[in-house]
Amino acid sequence: MFAHHTAPHGLFTHGGPARSWTVSTAKPVSYRVGFSPGVFDPSSSALARAGAVDGGPAPARRLLVVEERVDMLYGDLIRAYCDARGTDEYAIHVLPAHERLKTMDSVFSVVAAMDRFGLDRRREPVVAVGGGVLLDIVGLACSLYRRSTPYVRVPTTLIGLVDAGVGAKTGVNFGAGKNRLGTYHPAAETLLDPGFLATLDERHVSNGMAEILKIALIKDAELFELLENHGSALVADRFQPAGATGEEVLGRAVHGMLEELHDNLWEHRLERVVDYGHSFSPTLEMRALPALLHGEAVALDMALTTVIAARRGLVTDEQRDRVLDVMRALGLPVTHPLCAPDVLKEALADTVRHRDGRQRLPLPVGIGGSVFVNDLTTGELARAAGDLSALGEVASHA
Amino acid sequence: MFAHHTAPHGLFTHGGPARSWTVSTAKPVSYRVGFSPGVFDPSSSALARAGAVDGGPAPARRLLVVEERVDMLYGDLIRAYCDARGTDEYAIHVLPAHERLKTMDSVFSVVAAMDRFGLDRRREPVVAVGGGVLLDIVGLACSLYRRSTPYVRVPTTLIGLVDAGVGAKTGVNFGAGKNRLGTYHPAAETLLDPGFLATLDERHVSNGMAEILKIALIKDAELFELLENHGSALVADRFQPAGATGEEVLGRAVHGMLEELHDNLWEHRLERVVDYGHSFSPTLEMRALPALLHGEAVALDMALTTVIAARRGLVTDEQRDRVLDVMRALGLPVTHPLCAPDVLKEALADTVRHRDGRQRLPLPVGIGGSVFVNDLTTGELARAAGDLSALGEVASHA
Ligand SMILES: NC(=O)c1ccc[n+]([C@@H]2O[C@H](COP(=O)([O-])OP(=O)(O)OC[C@H]3O[C@@H](n4cnc5c(N)ncnc54)[C@H](O)[C@@H]3O)[C@@H](O)[C@H]2O)c1
Ligand SMILES: NC(=O)c1ccc[n+]([C@@H]2O[C@H](COP(=O)([O-])OP(=O)(O)OC[C@H]3O[C@@H](n4cnc5c(N)ncnc54)[C@H](O)[C@@H]3O)[C@@H](O)[C@H]2O)c1
Repeated sequence: MFAHHTAPHGLFTHGGPARSWTVSTAKPVSYRVGFSPGVFDPSSSALARAGAVDGGPAPARRLLVVEERVDMLYGDLIRAYCDARGTDEYAIHVLPAHERLKTMDSVFSVVAAMDRFGLDRRREPVVAVGGGVLLDIVGLACSLYRRSTPYVRVPTTLIGLVDAGVGAKTGVNFGAGKNRLGTYHPAAETLLDPGFLATLDERHVSNGMAEILKIALIKDAELFELLENHGSALVADRFQPAGATGEEVLGRAVHGMLEELHDNLWEHRLERVVDYGHSFSPTLEMRALPALLHGEAVALDMALTTVIAARRGLVTDEQRDRVLDVMRALGLPVTHPLCAPDVLKEALADTVRHRDGRQRLPLPVGIGGSVFVNDLTTGELARAAGDLSALGEVASHA
Repeated sequence: MFAHHTAPHGLFTHGGPARSWTVSTAKPVSYRVGFSPGVFDPSSSALARAGAVDGGPAPARRLLVVEERVDMLYGDLIRAYCDARGTDEYAIHVLPAHERLKTMDSVFSVVAAMDRFGLDRRREPVVAVGGGVLLDIVGLACSLYRRSTPYVRVPTTLIGLVDAGVGAKTGVNFGAGKNRLGTYHPAAETLLDPGFLATLDERHVSNGMAEILKIALIKDAELFELLENHGSALVADRFQPAGATGEEVLGRAVHGMLEELHDNLWEHRLERVVDYGHSFSPTLEMRALPALLHGEAVALDMALTTVIAARRGLVTDEQRDRVLDVMRALGLPVTHPLCAPDVLKEALADTVRHRDGRQRLPLPVGIGGSVFVNDLTTGELARAAGDLSALGEVASHA
């Protein structure tokens, strides 16, 4: 697939006079992600300059889309920043965002705000401030508006900081389908400020820890040890201040994610280790909505696949128990009534459609390794679900 | 911008341990457009094979989305083709499509059909059969579904054959905005069969001629002469059979369009000669809806800008009159009450937002040439509108 990068570009005609044509080209994409503590501190120019075209001047007009709760908590700060940094003209569109509002209607609300603001097509990047849901909604709106307009992300949740703010995907739910509609449209720039975590519910901090744990399990044993030793304290303190350990955990998570994404941004390869925890979870999350958060569903998926891997001898029982213990220490669930054979079977069937007819199921190998399998049977799935609920029982009685 | 093609790709980190990252990559895109007469003739394998992955087998399952009127006229043929070509399983989603139904609701209807069909993500290209509106709707649905799924286009109108079926754009209207929401997502393959024109209303043939005339005016003086000599006969005969002249007209139009698009597929350069006729027309078309068809609005825009060019001495009065005469011969309008200074001024303002703060207005130079200007004044616009309505009057009294 990536041979295309170096394949000749151009318009090729066949027949004379031409009766058929082949267009061969490539769309260049480049974007930045970086830590930017104190992003709304008037002394910081990062946000004011973010998304400026080719080193040009800071955009003079700004439309910001701010998540409702974030606006309640940080709205004054944001307005003071815009006033202080001399943005000629700005508007703030406040949008409530959580999983059940992750819909095209929310996208339309952003589009209408862009129309009202009279947004230029390419010179006035929209600034999105909020959690993963808000970032995915604004990303999709910007992707669609006049067939794409740039934007800047300021994530305010842990999932946003280490995952939703880092990649290229946008999306909303449609019908029963999690992220059924979306695009690949990375923000020109993402500014990561862990300071927002100070006000986040502990449950949402745990939720973000699930995506960090994912990176640890499939490719970063050192990160796993950091979580084993400091995870519960980081959750309790909400990374405030992040300190050396907190910074290392966040930095490793972002780096690991970008390493996996950067040469497969459009998912031309459907075997993606970062899909670990995302094979059964989309269906679990949508079925349980709003009971299970995204990261919680991912944790259940990882618990299940860890048990499957243990049954196959890919991880030892001791490693399996360490993994489940870390999940519990991070405040994540390891079992749920929805983890039943019939639901899991259905979840796998949809994922197979998403992965072009094959399971391509990432399983952990030890801690920090992974393998893809295509031979999971319904029987094996049912037995693993049984194991898992027994392990969950034991723990909750302990 | 296109230096990016050869810029190093990869993940670049700054700071140690990394605190900021740059992702630099490119998305390879390649697609085919070709004439394929008798596309639903069971002896033709083109459609059955269209969109097969990397020379693999013909897709065994097919979802077709067919425009309602086209289904009435050609539905039996289409079903007979699918049966004859041994497609294991197929479903036909019939969708009414015209400009007022060019909405996200129509996109949702296609998405729901994809869900019902249980479409695989990358192996089962959807087949879109219809005019420009249907192609734009299905293209957008495919672009959004699971963040992109392939499709095949079979245009059934003249606009579809020479324009909507040839490029990369998808889109729907939103609020007052023509194509306000959309993406760039070309079909893997487009099969051009002029036979469909046999049943098209003459007015829609004229409508498609406007986009052919556009290519002639900005870059192909020979094509202009073909239209001048044979245009009205081609309209009357609906290209049935296309014959040598008809084939040359269609082939030149497609070729000219692809020449302009192939190295600017994402419109990184906003100065596009193929935007000729599309500066004022989006607003005219949406304001007049449903009175003016797309190509009719484009013709009005070309008539107006031809008059502007004549006033500036870029085209002679004789060339201007030849152009207006060809429009009339093709059955296209050259004036309309909406071509009034206030509407035109507003139309220009929206186009300036679409072209990043500059007019980038293509004007004809002689016949077959063009230039971009940024200095059109409201006064000049008003005087040209006056000229045009006078020229229109003269003609209609003649
Ligand atoms: N695009 C991607 O690559 C990607 C990656 C991972 C997850 N996601 C998506 O992200 C979503 C989950 O994101 P999330 O966990 O951030 O959920 P979320 O966006 O729903 O935010 C959770 C809650 O936190 C509140 N909130 C946000 N910031 C806050 C702050 N600083 N202080 C206090 N409250 C705050 C919000 O009001 C919200 O109710 C899912 O829809 C998932 O699909 C996308
Ligand atoms: N994507 C692009 O690059 C691009 C380029 C040019 C135009 N467009 C879009 O295309 C649209 C106009 O397309 P259009 O002119 O094809 O209009 P259309 O799709 O509305 O079709 C016109 C009418 O013809 C009928 N029809 C279609 N095929 C027929 C056939 N073979 N016989 C009889 N009737 C038939 C349809 O029912 C419809 O009512 C506009 O919305 C325009 O924005 C897109």
